Amino acid sequence: MPRIILSINAGSSSVKVSVYEANGNSDTPNQLAEAQVEGLTAPPTKLKYERGDQKVKGKELDDINTQEDAFRYILDYLTKDNGLPQLNHKEDIKFTCHRVVHGGDYPKAQIIDENTYHHIATLSDLAPLHNAPALSIIRAVTSILPNAKNIAYFDSSFHASMPPHIKTYPIDQKVASHNQLRKYGFHGISYSFITHAVSIYLQKPASELNIIALHLGSGASACAIQGGKSLDTSMGLTPLAGLPGATRSGSIDPSLMFHFTHEAGMPSRSSTKEMHITTAEEILNKKSGWKALTGTTDFGAISASQDPECQLAFDIFCDRVLNYVGSYYVKLGGEVDALVFAGGIGERGARLRKEVVGRVECLGFRIDEGANEKPGEGVVVDVGAQEARHHTLVCRTDEQLEMARGVVEEAERFSKK
Amino acid sequence: MPRIILSINAGSSSVKVSVYEANGNSDTPNQLAEAQVEGLTAPPTKLKYERGDQKVKGKELDDINTQEDAFRYILDYLTKDNGLPQLNHKEDIKFTCHRVVHGGDYPKAQIIDENTYHHIATLSDLAPLHNAPALSIIRAVTSILPNAKNIAYFDSSFHASMPPHIKTYPIDQKVASHNQLRKYGFHGISYSFITHAVSIYLQKPASELNIIALHLGSGASACAIQGGKSLDTSMGLTPLAGLPGATRSGSIDPSLMFHFTHEAGMPSRSSTKEMHITTAEEILNKKSGWKALTGTTDFGAISASQDPECQLAFDIFCDRVLNYVGSYYVKLGGEVDALVFAGGIGERGARLRKEVVGRVECLGFRIDEGANEKPGEGVVVDVGAQEARHHTLVCRTDEQLEMARGVVEEAERFSKK
Repeated sequence: MPRIILSINAGSSSVKVSVYEANGNSDTPNQLAEAQVEGLTAPPTKLKYERGDQKVKGKELDDINTQEDAFRYILDYLTKDNGLPQLNHKEDIKFTCHRVVHGGDYPKAQIIDENTYHHIATLSDLAPLHNAPALSIIRAVTSILPNAKNIAYFDSSFHASMPPHIKTYPIDQKVASHNQLRKYGFHGISYSFITHAVSIYLQKPASELNIIALHLGSGASACAIQGGKSLDTSMGLTPLAGLPGATRSGSIDPSLMFHFTHEAGMPSRSSTKEMHITTAEEILNKKSGWKALTGTTDFGAISASQDPECQLAFDIFCDRVLNYVGSYYVKLGGEVDALVFAGGIGERGARLRKEVVGRVECLGFRIDEGANEKPGEGVVVDVGAQEARHHTLVCRTDEQLEMARGVVEEAERFSKK
Repeated sequence: MPRIILSINAGSSSVKVSVYEANGNSDTPNQLAEAQVEGLTAPPTKLKYERGDQKVKGKELDDINTQEDAFRYILDYLTKDNGLPQLNHKEDIKFTCHRVVHGGDYPKAQIIDENTYHHIATLSDLAPLHNAPALSIIRAVTSILPNAKNIAYFDSSFHASMPPHIKTYPIDQKVASHNQLRKYGFHGISYSFITHAVSIYLQKPASELNIIALHLGSGASACAIQGGKSLDTSMGLTPLAGLPGATRSGSIDPSLMFHFTHEAGMPSRSSTKEMHITTAEEILNKKSGWKALTGTTDFGAISASQDPECQLAFDIFCDRVLNYVGSYYVKLGGEVDALVFAGGIGERGARLRKEVVGRVECLGFRIDEGANEKPGEGVVVDVGAQEARHHTLVCRTDEQLEMARGVVEEAERFSKK
């Protein structure tokens, strides 16, 4: 009997649900459909739906205001879709997977029960901007689907392998230990997918795979992966550190915010009783990055523009990305199978890839301009020149699928409890 | 007639004065003597003095409590030293050079007059911990030596050449511009010395010289120097960013301090009416780094220790240094003449050099273990293996001499006013 798995990814303004079928014969679950409700915080709320060739785009919805509303609507829509006979009743759903940004010390996915829920809630203090939306959708889904196993996948787990000298900040160690202040790293579900996909593509076991992976989207990070495991990554205690993004500054002088505003440490306007965010964190996470430099968060538009502000933003991003490529090349001792571009910008940003790879020719990378302009279909595509010492790949990362695959792989562990 | 130049370097607890003679025939002034008063904030106050073979070590002093006291004492000591006939009267002193950490947008040294003094005072808002001691010694010296030309040398000037995409933080550009928030970089007087010395050593004009320079001391930074000019450096708006140091965290997640203490943005206890320092800045500049990890600020002791805390501190420092070597190698397109170690740790830290160079063999560096253990005399010493693609050098940097040399080089500009 097939098992239905839902992978759920909730932001503050949207809920995305991917429907998978696991049939026991394959490691990789089969995607049946994908539904997304957008605009929760900026109505009108709209539905996007895809099942095979069947597509709904931008159907306006009434009275859908919360993540719970959105999930109930999607569930209703899925069970009533005649083209989806595998999911006629909500009881058909055996597993739901939730992407949670900050998992603290959790080295792997966890079944969500009272304990884990409360622990994740505690961790929200470390990443209030990031964990809060996941918590509210988890609360909704567990009450709507009491018979499903609900699993939390953490963006930080993949980086549990980082050694102490990379995880540790050189600050007061008592406070660090008490307040759980260390480098955690994020985008781990994506890096796990990338590792798996590149391992298959290069026909090399993951345990022998060394790559420099770049997940470049509106949030962007880099990861040095050695023997299939995270050795270092650019994000830190929170997703703020490292590369800049759509509205995020990335790493800056830690003194800077105290020279930016005298209210750096005061609660921001968007703080609530449950969610404590300082003015500094709000500004650096929400009002910086491309948006602050150019007025837009769309890196595609920035790449295509001749405006000096856009050129500056593009050059800043290339520079900061290159810093990590150089560092991680050294960290891997030059034993690098591939430089991998992923995420929205990594997958679609031909100009960025050309610029970055062009500047690391001294390390043995080289772009194939034709392949780079039009990377063909496929989860992993080689856009490097044949004669180059190391591969340059584009990987179409899929966090929803990675979570569902995790459920299939670990079905035994998850069925025990 | 010989001209006497004093190079003055004042910290909060010490005043160091180097005496040079410029005779017009050489670009390089000749050092005659060096005097240092230490312990101003931790009595007993002591004098160290060197002139040729003549050495005084640790002579205890009474009633010397301020930088002004210390300077008056040193000046008296120098003029009364019979072995120093070139400096019998304070009127023999034609120039004094002052090391000032933060020079804002000043691209070169400045004669200190009313205007420049007040401008430097304004800049102290950006670097209160760093500029304040220099300001108070400048005030004292200009009143004691009204006939000398007093010149301010800035640690930031050398980095004026950094391009906009490296200087700019991806934050609100109106605030950045109004509050002068950009990457400035520091240790520039040292990097200027290093560039000059390595250019002579490698017999290559500075304008064609590309090096990765590491100034590693209780404050530590890295610099990518292209064509003799700073292309990028690890410190930022303030000296806090980049590498960790004796009591400094270096770069950390910009959110971290808000999770370290709720008082991050509040004035620190050491704040005064003139000097505004937040609790966060105090903790990150004064209570972090090696001190927080190991209890000592002595990196030599840390390197020699088997304690796990010391090993961790050593590994953290190597890791962070390597990050910059990798980045800057890429930034220079692999066209690197030398990796240069300078500063107390850079010059004396054989173990650190061996570890760092060993990990960048993939970039074409290699250490000569014998030369590394006992680098001979000389301002610049090659500690790299002969067959290596790039040089590895140790440079005994001398900021005092660099300032005096600057005076000789620019005597015409400084004599105009």
